[in-house]
Amino acid sequence: MSIPTAPPSGFRDFLPDQVALRHDAIETIQKIYRSFGFQPVATAAVEDLAVLVGQGGNENEKLIFKIMKRGEALERAQAEKTDLADLGLRFDLTLPLARYYTKHGSALPHPFKAFNMGPVWRAERAQKGRYREFTQCDADIIGADSWGAEVDVITAILTVFKAFGLAGVKVHLNDRRFVDQALEKAGVPAEKRGAACVVVDKLDKSEPEKVLAELEAEVGTEAAKALAGSIMAVEAGPDMLSAVQGEFAHLTRISDAVKSVMPDAVIVLTPNLMRGMGYYTGPVFEFRHPSLSGSLGGGGRYDRLTEKFGGRPIPACGGSIGFERLMLLLEELGRRSPDALPDAVVTVFSDELRGRSIAVAAALRAKGLSVDLYPGGGKLKVQFKYADQKKARYAVVIGPDEAERGVVQVKSLATGDEQALSLEEACARIAAGT
Amino acid sequence: MSIPTAPPSGFRDFLPDQVALRHDAIETIQKIYRSFGFQPVATAAVEDLAVLVGQGGNENEKLIFKIMKRGEALERAQAEKTDLADLGLRFDLTLPLARYYTKHGSALPHPFKAFNMGPVWRAERAQKGRYREFTQCDADIIGADSWGAEVDVITAILTVFKAFGLAGVKVHLNDRRFVDQALEKAGVPAEKRGAACVVVDKLDKSEPEKVLAELEAEVGTEAAKALAGSIMAVEAGPDMLSAVQGEFAHLTRISDAVKSVMPDAVIVLTPNLMRGMGYYTGPVFEFRHPSLSGSLGGGGRYDRLTEKFGGRPIPACGGSIGFERLMLLLEELGRRSPDALPDAVVTVFSDELRGRSIAVAAALRAKGLSVDLYPGGGKLKVQFKYADQKKARYAVVIGPDEAERGVVQVKSLATGDEQALSLEEACARIAAGT
Repeated sequence: MSIPTAPPSGFRDFLPDQVALRHDAIETIQKIYRSFGFQPVATAAVEDLAVLVGQGGNENEKLIFKIMKRGEALERAQAEKTDLADLGLRFDLTLPLARYYTKHGSALPHPFKAFNMGPVWRAERAQKGRYREFTQCDADIIGADSWGAEVDVITAILTVFKAFGLAGVKVHLNDRRFVDQALEKAGVPAEKRGAACVVVDKLDKSEPEKVLAELEAEVGTEAAKALAGSIMAVEAGPDMLSAVQGEFAHLTRISDAVKSVMPDAVIVLTPNLMRGMGYYTGPVFEFRHPSLSGSLGGGGRYDRLTEKFGGRPIPACGGSIGFERLMLLLEELGRRSPDALPDAVVTVFSDELRGRSIAVAAALRAKGLSVDLYPGGGKLKVQFKYADQKKARYAVVIGPDEAERGVVQVKSLATGDEQALSLEEACARIAAGT
Repeated sequence: MSIPTAPPSGFRDFLPDQVALRHDAIETIQKIYRSFGFQPVATAAVEDLAVLVGQGGNENEKLIFKIMKRGEALERAQAEKTDLADLGLRFDLTLPLARYYTKHGSALPHPFKAFNMGPVWRAERAQKGRYREFTQCDADIIGADSWGAEVDVITAILTVFKAFGLAGVKVHLNDRRFVDQALEKAGVPAEKRGAACVVVDKLDKSEPEKVLAELEAEVGTEAAKALAGSIMAVEAGPDMLSAVQGEFAHLTRISDAVKSVMPDAVIVLTPNLMRGMGYYTGPVFEFRHPSLSGSLGGGGRYDRLTEKFGGRPIPACGGSIGFERLMLLLEELGRRSPDALPDAVVTVFSDELRGRSIAVAAALRAKGLSVDLYPGGGKLKVQFKYADQKKARYAVVIGPDEAERGVVQVKSLATGDEQALSLEEACARIAAGT
């Protein structure tokens, strides 16, 4: 059996620069979420399958990585031909949050403003830009039925995009109940509405004519024609414009309030915006960027998700940043991580003098410097090459002569300039960067 | 089917304070690893099963959470009665690192100093203090055969413990080859040596008499008696003391070098130290703390791990911090996270005045303050309770009177003192904390 050195299809390894960039981005998002009063929550990667399945109309269920039972439980399941899997990897952070809140809600502030960041897993067909493990950065407000919650979530996420210098992000806004009304008005029977939504949702990726044809096949020509003017439209038609002056006035309030604090924000009423998740019950929103097909994130109101766990319905609203897409954009923009490159590499002249190098490295670190002690042995030339690879600013050499004189050689790797300095002088020079 | 609200057995939810404490600790460890010149790497949670299994003598293999094949591949496996699982959750970070280095080594500095932090999964019987998902914080040096690598790893990890204010950490040190020699000297045949090691490794948790009896049963009375004076001993006996003056002098060098830069460090030669992992080939070490049974971390040299992936043998040495145990200790020590509690909660007087509160919150945030805007509506009394729950320092109120006068009420939640201030004055007061 040949053992692969690549990660499994759809999974990734990250090189040090990439890890640093991702970590830096996570820290930025976290800092902004915190500054809005969101508190961090964390759940395990693994959930009982019963938690993950059974969410009506949720496409993601098919994409669960299922974990096999173990030991006797597996043997029993095989003998009795029952389910072989009992656990699964979470496919989003919202369902675990709903479980978490049902369990821990009484110990948490009310309303509860949570942020939750981490990997999720979906067994999708791996393809360019679509991964089987990817990071989500969610902000949610549980227990508030006001449109103020949507404003808070959308503003926080826009603030993240702004912090990364992303220009041109558009917020698309719709309401699931507006969709329901349009379907009812068009005479689409209740049992066909879910399927109709799935068809309309394809407008993102498919030709409008094709989608319309598919919709006709699903709900009939008359209904499809009616829908073409309402929820098939890219821009708000008369139906929607009158709705947002009446019973859907909260959409106007959300839009106005976001724009009042972020005057650059572009918010577009988008009647065909569905957001795939079956659990949304009110406003839905999505962030798009001109350089990306698909979305940079999105979310909406899901007032009934905790019911699944036997709780009473609790109003909730949340948004998620598509972290992998954000990283893609940042890479395109040439963003580099403000990575803590080592200030200096301390070389090791010989095994006898290694102790000296260890002491010098420790002394430099004690001054707060980031110091890489060469971990091997051998030629100084190779060690200088190492210092270059690590992008260190200085190389420090302690040979027999320096050891005897009680000095260290400090070489700037940028200029090549080299000086014999006392340890104290060396610290000062490296810290000053001169 | 009743849907559980608790995480699966052995898995955990974390409340906001816990997440903040864990995150803070991870940041501290990361900062120290970086300051030693270690670079971050990251791999996926999921590996091909072929990567995870087949490591000789590795107890952890039995503990793999296996992921079922999906779709047609699953049907085929069921029909053909072949393996139903193709992937697994990683049970440590070392094996993935060996794979990663075999794949990416040519693009990395040489030697490569890596740190790798993240969750790992083991299907152990869940019990107090033992979890099925837990975090590891590894530092590794690949490509250096010098004892300087051990010094670097041990010093970095001790620096972490020091940063957390942990006193009394002891480093236990041994060499796998010393164990091999002792077994050979005692006349234990090669094929029984692995089993003998497993027995001696139980000294940690079991009565010495019981272990000795088990060892006798395994290797015979004579051999067991010989081993009682060497690798069964808690303290270095004559065998070990002469070894560390001869061919195992590197253990003395490691110990002396660490103590030269960390004078408080206590390093103990411990002939019975095994470290369970089958892949260690030279020095092994373990960190212990008087308040903990078991270890706070450990590691060793594993010069042959990349062979598994078809590469040539590469010298490597690494150490791991037992993050969950560290958190346990920090909790006992009463460590609190320097959590960014909100500076202020901005209340919402009414839905009509919500826009005003949104604007005030945005203005305060623009000054760099951490501001929680109340996301719901309703009585101010409830909102003040919320501000208490969030441990905010101030509550800000904008009622009709304040809106008209263009001021905001700023109430200190510590003293109850309340003042009507202009927005600018409010920013200044909250920032100053007066």
